[in-house]
Amino acid sequence: MTRFRLTIEYDGGSFVGWQRQENGPSIQQCLEEAVMATVQEETNVYGAGRTDAGVHATGQVAHVDIAKEIAPERLMAALNFHLKPNPIAVIDCAIAAEDFHARFSATGRAYLYRISNRRAPPVLDRGHVWWVAAELDAAAMHEAAQRLLGKHDFSTFRATLCQAQSPVKTLDRLDVRLAGDEIYIIAEARSFLHHQVRNMVGTLSLVGHGKWSADDVTTALEARDRTKGGPTAPPDGLYLTRVVY
Amino acid sequence: MTRFRLTIEYDGGSFVGWQRQENGPSIQQCLEEAVMATVQEETNVYGAGRTDAGVHATGQVAHVDIAKEIAPERLMAALNFHLKPNPIAVIDCAIAAEDFHARFSATGRAYLYRISNRRAPPVLDRGHVWWVAAELDAAAMHEAAQRLLGKHDFSTFRATLCQAQSPVKTLDRLDVRLAGDEIYIIAEARSFLHHQVRNMVGTLSLVGHGKWSADDVTTALEARDRTKGGPTAPPDGLYLTRVVY
Repeated sequence: MTRFRLTIEYDGGSFVGWQRQENGPSIQQCLEEAVMATVQEETNVYGAGRTDAGVHATGQVAHVDIAKEIAPERLMAALNFHLKPNPIAVIDCAIAAEDFHARFSATGRAYLYRISNRRAPPVLDRGHVWWVAAELDAAAMHEAAQRLLGKHDFSTFRATLCQAQSPVKTLDRLDVRLAGDEIYIIAEARSFLHHQVRNMVGTLSLVGHGKWSADDVTTALEARDRTKGGPTAPPDGLYLTRVVY
Repeated sequence: MTRFRLTIEYDGGSFVGWQRQENGPSIQQCLEEAVMATVQEETNVYGAGRTDAGVHATGQVAHVDIAKEIAPERLMAALNFHLKPNPIAVIDCAIAAEDFHARFSATGRAYLYRISNRRAPPVLDRGHVWWVAAELDAAAMHEAAQRLLGKHDFSTFRATLCQAQSPVKTLDRLDVRLAGDEIYIIAEARSFLHHQVRNMVGTLSLVGHGKWSADDVTTALEARDRTKGGPTAPPDGLYLTRVVY
């Protein structure tokens, strides 16, 4: 039995999310079917981040155990062949240590959130950004974002369905910067609560519109109450970009 | 009658090209229908570059004459409303001089060609890049590209269907550079022959693969014969990015 570490890119727009579900196709299921088609083995593909419906990845990491002997480069090519036409690609494949676990061994996760901030709707990036037509103040958003850094009870930014045992997380980075007519928000932490990035982005958008101050963000954080936070930003703009081990 | 200058972004993947044709939807037709829906006027929308089927734009420029009085920002919003769900957006709209002509007043055009150069197929950028799995030597491509700069008879890079009166053009810029796992090729000239950028990119790909030298590119150029050039790169990677007046 060999454990493989897969690095995966996908367009989340046509899936119910990373995880297998009854109500539609998942990225996990497509990968498990591609493994089956490649080596005729029933496997579980474990992902580092269980991204939601519509959320994309450029650097999701997963592991899978395969009995048949196969070289990583051959496995990667075969998986990509069988994954077609699904918008999922294995961009790296390597043999991992027996005790490597994509989810539990991870010591850091990075997400990118893209806002298209212009009057015209995005067309080349449709489904890949959150379109906000009114001008946002990215500098004010960045300043307010710094209030969320560090170890906090993030209940204000936690989905009601979140299964994490504790709402306490340590946020290492939350940068907001202009990139042409887009705003990039980069979030890094050991792990995140369910919807945490999207809820933080939605809250920061209120700051960008001038409706909230940085102090309002601190007040919301301290309330530890989801109803005191801003809206949940749509999944379209969110990318799992990197998992650190 | 007011002449408007429109700057337009589109995903060319679902169109027969810029120009109205019998065999399917064109970007020009969609824009003319959006103008009709907005001001109930039959118009001609003239574009600076008649991009081919599958070719995209981030900065196409067009002009249109409208009799009804309407402010540019209102026209832009209404056109974008009526263009839905087509992947076309008007990203800028301004009143132009009476004698402004999107095509004939243009003094320069810039194109970007994106090659995804990695082993795994692109999925987030599917249809928006040319996927070349084998590693390309971008530095060698750039060096060879410089052989094409200046005023030449570009018959080697001209589509047989090209309607231009002369095959002589002046190429001002042809830069090839690495951008992560992509190769960007930037081409600038007053105007281009039909398929010229795609034929130059296809030829440079032979250099990137080590099959051709820079001298082979010079020899091909001097042959003034399409059959001596490299293949035509697919439309997917090509973007009309800017028109200069």
